[in-house]
Amino acid sequence: MRRHFEDAEDELKSRLLHMGSLAETMVHEAVRGLSERNVAALDRVFDAEHEVNRLHIEIDDRCFKIIALHQPAASDLRFLMASIKINSDLERIADQAVNVSENARILLGLPRLERQLLDIPRMCDLAKSMVKDSITAFVRKDVELARQVVERDNEEDKLKSQAFHELMQLMQSDSSTIQRALGLILIARNLERIADHATNIAEDVIFMVLGKDIRHAAEQEALPPA
Amino acid sequence: MRRHFEDAEDELKSRLLHMGSLAETMVHEAVRGLSERNVAALDRVFDAEHEVNRLHIEIDDRCFKIIALHQPAASDLRFLMASIKINSDLERIADQAVNVSENARILLGLPRLERQLLDIPRMCDLAKSMVKDSITAFVRKDVELARQVVERDNEEDKLKSQAFHELMQLMQSDSSTIQRALGLILIARNLERIADHATNIAEDVIFMVLGKDIRHAAEQEALPPA
Repeated sequence: MRRHFEDAEDELKSRLLHMGSLAETMVHEAVRGLSERNVAALDRVFDAEHEVNRLHIEIDDRCFKIIALHQPAASDLRFLMASIKINSDLERIADQAVNVSENARILLGLPRLERQLLDIPRMCDLAKSMVKDSITAFVRKDVELARQVVERDNEEDKLKSQAFHELMQLMQSDSSTIQRALGLILIARNLERIADHATNIAEDVIFMVLGKDIRHAAEQEALPPA
Repeated sequence: MRRHFEDAEDELKSRLLHMGSLAETMVHEAVRGLSERNVAALDRVFDAEHEVNRLHIEIDDRCFKIIALHQPAASDLRFLMASIKINSDLERIADQAVNVSENARILLGLPRLERQLLDIPRMCDLAKSMVKDSITAFVRKDVELARQVVERDNEEDKLKSQAFHELMQLMQSDSSTIQRALGLILIARNLERIADHATNIAEDVIFMVLGKDIRHAAEQEALPPA
């Protein structure tokens, strides 16, 4: 029975790894489509969504069956609860990559902005690395790596605020840029959301390994002692 | 043992109901704070976030303990898996209400726009009703009500697109409105996300009751038969 459980666990991990790598590639192709004005890259993002959606349902179903069949407890159950949540975050990362592609498709129909994409490629690289490392941390049960992902989220927020600020100034100085700058603001927001989902995954990994819930830790500390 | 399980299930439901009603109130107060220029209403949203975060952790912990202790199968397990996901969606709805309040706080520091809030109060009412009905559908295991929530999501998307369009025109015709119109665009986006989370909850209810996964149904139908 234990070996069956471990086989099922390995199978589940490999599906989540595959889904993580698909989601990461979608983020990459969406921003590449925008920066290289490459419609084929954007189309690949829309195509990949079907596979992600199929995996989303399959992984949920696997988790359900493993819990029903093996009745796991303690760390095995924490692993399965983390898998359910990570599955949902990966699906939402893929959704956000689709949103980036939709916004990018509109931008490709308009002339290039003179001040090009600002820090958006950097935001994309950071978000991708966070997605990749959060999944690696999950597979290796690596708390240290998960903590690094959580810390990197501040950097992404800072880049987004800076991009918002610069794009708003651009709109104000030249009203012909409004539609394009707004498209980039929405894309920066999508990338920030991707980083947030990677952070959620990293927090789930920490809970899975340590059995300790670090979510909302800052706010909890801010509350007076009971 | 069965009675213990049912007591634990009722306790969990009442916590999720409470969290749902908190999240709905936060959405209401955030938009009220904006439309009535009422800072106290916005502050109540920030305050309520602590309670939501506490409940988020408590509910996850309850689900974990019920599964570990009662080793549920079939519809009982589907109920618990739905609870885990609904908990996470409610926490994100509350997060979005906080985002609305943050954007609203900036807007209150600026003069009112002549063309006021457009359809944003209507978007708020629709999103609130979706949150409320999705949780009612969960507690009553009401598939019909859950389906109605899923259908109403299109209406919210339509209102958001219209608001985006009108606000972009406003920016283009009068550059002094750019910062305020952008704030409203972000708020419209937050409300659309709230409706999306309510839709997720409704889909989880349908899965819980029927054991049938309707997520991504449209895309699945679009794929060629295997």
